[in-house]
Amino acid sequence: MKEELTQALSRMLGKPITFVNQPDGAGLIIRTTSANASLGSEGFQLQSNATNTAITLSAQTDIGLLYGGFHLLRLMQTRQPLIQLNIHSTPKLALRLLNHWDNLNRYVERGYAGISIFNWHTLPGYIDQRYIDYARANASIGINGTVLTNVNANAWILTGDYLQKVKALADVFRPYGIKVYLTARFSAPIEMGGLSTADPLQPQVQQWWQQKVKEIYTLIPDFGGFLVKANSEGQPGPQDYKRTHADGANMLADAVAPYNGIIMWRAFVYSHETPEDRFKQAYNEFKPLDGQFRKNVMVQVKNGPIDFQPREPFSPLFGAMPQTPLMMEFQLTQEYLGQGTHLVYEAPMFKETLDADTHINGKGSTVTKSVSGIAGVANIGNDINWCSHPFAQANWYALGKLAWNPAQSSETIAEEWIRQTWSNKTTVVNTCKQIMLQSREAMVNYMTPLGLHHIMGNGHHYGPLPWGNTLPRADWNPVYYHRADSAGIGFNRTATGSNALAQYHPAAAAAWADSNTCSSEYLLWFHHVSWQHRMPTGRSLWQELCFRYNQGVAQVRTMQQQWQQLQPYIDKERYTQVQLMLGIQQREAVWWRDACLLYFQQFSQQPIPAQYEKPAHTLEYYQNLKFPYAPGNG
Amino acid sequence: MKEELTQALSRMLGKPITFVNQPDGAGLIIRTTSANASLGSEGFQLQSNATNTAITLSAQTDIGLLYGGFHLLRLMQTRQPLIQLNIHSTPKLALRLLNHWDNLNRYVERGYAGISIFNWHTLPGYIDQRYIDYARANASIGINGTVLTNVNANAWILTGDYLQKVKALADVFRPYGIKVYLTARFSAPIEMGGLSTADPLQPQVQQWWQQKVKEIYTLIPDFGGFLVKANSEGQPGPQDYKRTHADGANMLADAVAPYNGIIMWRAFVYSHETPEDRFKQAYNEFKPLDGQFRKNVMVQVKNGPIDFQPREPFSPLFGAMPQTPLMMEFQLTQEYLGQGTHLVYEAPMFKETLDADTHINGKGSTVTKSVSGIAGVANIGNDINWCSHPFAQANWYALGKLAWNPAQSSETIAEEWIRQTWSNKTTVVNTCKQIMLQSREAMVNYMTPLGLHHIMGNGHHYGPLPWGNTLPRADWNPVYYHRADSAGIGFNRTATGSNALAQYHPAAAAAWADSNTCSSEYLLWFHHVSWQHRMPTGRSLWQELCFRYNQGVAQVRTMQQQWQQLQPYIDKERYTQVQLMLGIQQREAVWWRDACLLYFQQFSQQPIPAQYEKPAHTLEYYQNLKFPYAPGNG
Repeated sequence: MKEELTQALSRMLGKPITFVNQPDGAGLIIRTTSANASLGSEGFQLQSNATNTAITLSAQTDIGLLYGGFHLLRLMQTRQPLIQLNIHSTPKLALRLLNHWDNLNRYVERGYAGISIFNWHTLPGYIDQRYIDYARANASIGINGTVLTNVNANAWILTGDYLQKVKALADVFRPYGIKVYLTARFSAPIEMGGLSTADPLQPQVQQWWQQKVKEIYTLIPDFGGFLVKANSEGQPGPQDYKRTHADGANMLADAVAPYNGIIMWRAFVYSHETPEDRFKQAYNEFKPLDGQFRKNVMVQVKNGPIDFQPREPFSPLFGAMPQTPLMMEFQLTQEYLGQGTHLVYEAPMFKETLDADTHINGKGSTVTKSVSGIAGVANIGNDINWCSHPFAQANWYALGKLAWNPAQSSETIAEEWIRQTWSNKTTVVNTCKQIMLQSREAMVNYMTPLGLHHIMGNGHHYGPLPWGNTLPRADWNPVYYHRADSAGIGFNRTATGSNALAQYHPAAAAAWADSNTCSSEYLLWFHHVSWQHRMPTGRSLWQELCFRYNQGVAQVRTMQQQWQQLQPYIDKERYTQVQLMLGIQQREAVWWRDACLLYFQQFSQQPIPAQYEKPAHTLEYYQNLKFPYAPGNG
Repeated sequence: MKEELTQALSRMLGKPITFVNQPDGAGLIIRTTSANASLGSEGFQLQSNATNTAITLSAQTDIGLLYGGFHLLRLMQTRQPLIQLNIHSTPKLALRLLNHWDNLNRYVERGYAGISIFNWHTLPGYIDQRYIDYARANASIGINGTVLTNVNANAWILTGDYLQKVKALADVFRPYGIKVYLTARFSAPIEMGGLSTADPLQPQVQQWWQQKVKEIYTLIPDFGGFLVKANSEGQPGPQDYKRTHADGANMLADAVAPYNGIIMWRAFVYSHETPEDRFKQAYNEFKPLDGQFRKNVMVQVKNGPIDFQPREPFSPLFGAMPQTPLMMEFQLTQEYLGQGTHLVYEAPMFKETLDADTHINGKGSTVTKSVSGIAGVANIGNDINWCSHPFAQANWYALGKLAWNPAQSSETIAEEWIRQTWSNKTTVVNTCKQIMLQSREAMVNYMTPLGLHHIMGNGHHYGPLPWGNTLPRADWNPVYYHRADSAGIGFNRTATGSNALAQYHPAAAAAWADSNTCSSEYLLWFHHVSWQHRMPTGRSLWQELCFRYNQGVAQVRTMQQQWQQLQPYIDKERYTQVQLMLGIQQREAVWWRDACLLYFQQFSQQPIPAQYEKPAHTLEYYQNLKFPYAPGNG
């Protein structure tokens, strides 16, 4: 922490910093104390003395001091007054993680910021400065763990040579309070161990994992544990042996338990065989297993029931597994959110889920109360500025801040980030905040308004493909989700349809159950409604759809204008970068609007109202576009 | 150029620069002149006045002024006196190109510095600052063309959407005097045009290319032309239709001729069927075609007959095609030269080839005299520092400088680069120069001493694999090249062997023809000699092999010690980076030595002399190493 303070303070204050062991009562006093148990192992306190001549930073641990030091630097960098400080801060969630979907060859699945910062080939001999800076950046926002490898896992990471590489990273990250985790390929005992089975109930399988785990902990005594994607999208898992997810998770949990390791077992599963509404499958699979998991197993649940769409209702699993600690999985990388070039500030989306009321224990049973940790699928790559879009780093930042304190507002977090990233000038702060805070609704409008979902391109997920109907699984195809026909549009998930609504507490489901009272934002998630359906705005559904798509385009254009006003205050390189990317975003918003409206118009058989721009091309034009080299394909 | 001078001079001089249209006779006077035809279209003149109060920079063109401006800045940055300047500089070679082996998905074949800087997906909407900086860097060293795409070509680059992207790059590069070129996939008329053939003599094929070329030149009026790899390593080509390389090249040449475009046709071919010594095949294929190519075809020849090995004799094609302009192809990226982590300064290797005497027109017929241009296979990626290893940029630099003036010495170029990159301090300049100038011989020693070649790992080409004998083609396997047996080692290319020597002018071949007089550096390229063969040093061949491998390791250790002496003068980040990479280089040098000596020892049946370090592992250990995720595999 001394190094961080020296580096930052000497730059901020423009003069060298000196440290003394016997403080004279003025300046910054730093101390570890065991006297204040309420600080826990990560909390810190910052207190001014009565005369405001000294600030005391105290914590029970070195990492608490580091967090406090970063907090103080943040106060200074964002120009907050340093008098009468009385801050007592502890993380509300114990696990605050990044998940890297990074392959061993450095390809990042759903990555839009270059390739992986983890250069496995040159580890452990070469320690890139980036590893250190990565740890510093994470520590500065309270992130305390990182899963280094893709959930679509590769057993090779568990070889002896690669564990040496993992150890090298763990050694770099340790002083910053960051534990490393790996993904475990369930079939590793076969692929690496030469066993004929990976059945979790077979003793030789259990022994193989116990040995491997012992090997890991010998190298990395504070190894965090494993994240596992099993029996999902082709990954091996316990069901290959007619065992349950609990059988699989518990076997691994027993292996890491002696070392205080944990298993994060993903709930993102959907069956190869079952024609059940994909919305319902994670719940159907995991809810019955509540109570069967070991204490050191966490079930990791995506925020929504499908897959990181621009807007999803909260997953019905939140609150539904009271005996099982749950991890929230958010996706920072913008797989479905405009990928590398759209400015989308995700905190409002995260907050929408965290603040949603499950009603499980009565009103006010927020999703936040049902989770023990938050993981963010990283948006980091080897691009010079880490996240490619200059505004994308705000999402990494927000993930850390919300995991520390889910009660913080999107606006507060945005303002903090803007001040540290762009400028403390009022006009920059206010304008950037306006841009950021409207960005997510803009994107929902130009991509998937009114509860539309999963209508993007196949494979790479780039651009609109509402007509998509060629993939071998029904529930991979856009038409499965929007169900547009001459009668109307939307997925009926009420009792007359798939009845996914029944997975929610009745009080939560009530808000969405009736198409006449369901909020417009979720309408087509739960109802197949007619094109004439009267919306709260007085428009018909078709008119509302046209309005929303055009509204989204207009919002992006507003963002462009707002950004232009900042030209005098922003360095030329970053100004141009954002300006060009907003240009792409605007053109792609128009593309989404035109392709979707032309397609849905086939069913609505109604004109696009005259006040809106006409599509520049025919539907066939959009249907013929091909992007074989769009990035990030998994 | 005004922008470059402003940016650089204001920083160097620490004060703002002003430009006036009516110079008062002092300062820097910049003018274009048509009076000095000897400057050509790219040359420049820098002249002091009698009182040294003014310097006049003159050129016939804007690009000449830009080159001159960069030259002046270089003089200043390297602390050269600015008095009595009388510099008249023109490029000795008209074509000074980079070749990018970059795929459309940004994967770089044989790339060790991240992924491609060319982000095709976000072009043309997003113009990365890197594109501009890339052009500036190239212009500063005289590079005037770049082939944007991999020689293992993808026809998709020729689609209308992608040509818009190419145009965007061309527009960025144009002010810096850099033309863009593309690779042409020979079968594009089939893959994109829907034709049933790509036969170069078929009119519809010719028409397809004419149309495509017209489309390109409409967008990019100064498009440079195509680089083609045909009928080589699986690439399609004219021989698929029983046509010659000249038929294929001429067809494309005719298409681009109306626009002054050129075709660079690669001579790197070797037959699927013929069991002929691979060394001989390019010559056998192309020499008979001399005189059959159109005037705007250049044949692009790798420096050596095999494939960018640490040391190769010059290709016998140089000088052998007097009626055909030749391009020299060097490889900057270190596919066979330690890849991303070894410090190897390549200028001495380039010079070795350029200065070699073909004797074609009598003594002094250097390879340089037989080439009209130089291409360097780029070592550039999206890593923060462009080339990953802090010293790798020196090779990019040297390529540009040598293409401008092949007579420059490796040492001069190294010194210029060190002064601009590290420091003007004498100790830094001298020590870095020592490190750089010995680095290539060190690498030859620890990898492939005495004329060994092509004994590296399969596919990724990482690490030693002298035992390699499992690939389907004989001439892909290391054992094909070293031919070690109980009698001796080396490839007999004399008249009693493959007689590849006969491809050289007798006066050139004479230097290598006799195993007793052939220089040690090339011995095993041309001779199979016994383990007892007496070397000029007095050692037996086996002893000499042991000596050289150990010498290579010792040289790397010396480089490490030299670098350590520079710690006080180098910033911590770059110091550490080089230090760690030298550590890897040292360990890999030991690995090469031990694996190769243990393997060859099986045949020599002699001990490794006692004065040398013993291998740390058994041969089996080295033979079992696997690197499935080594980078750059093509």
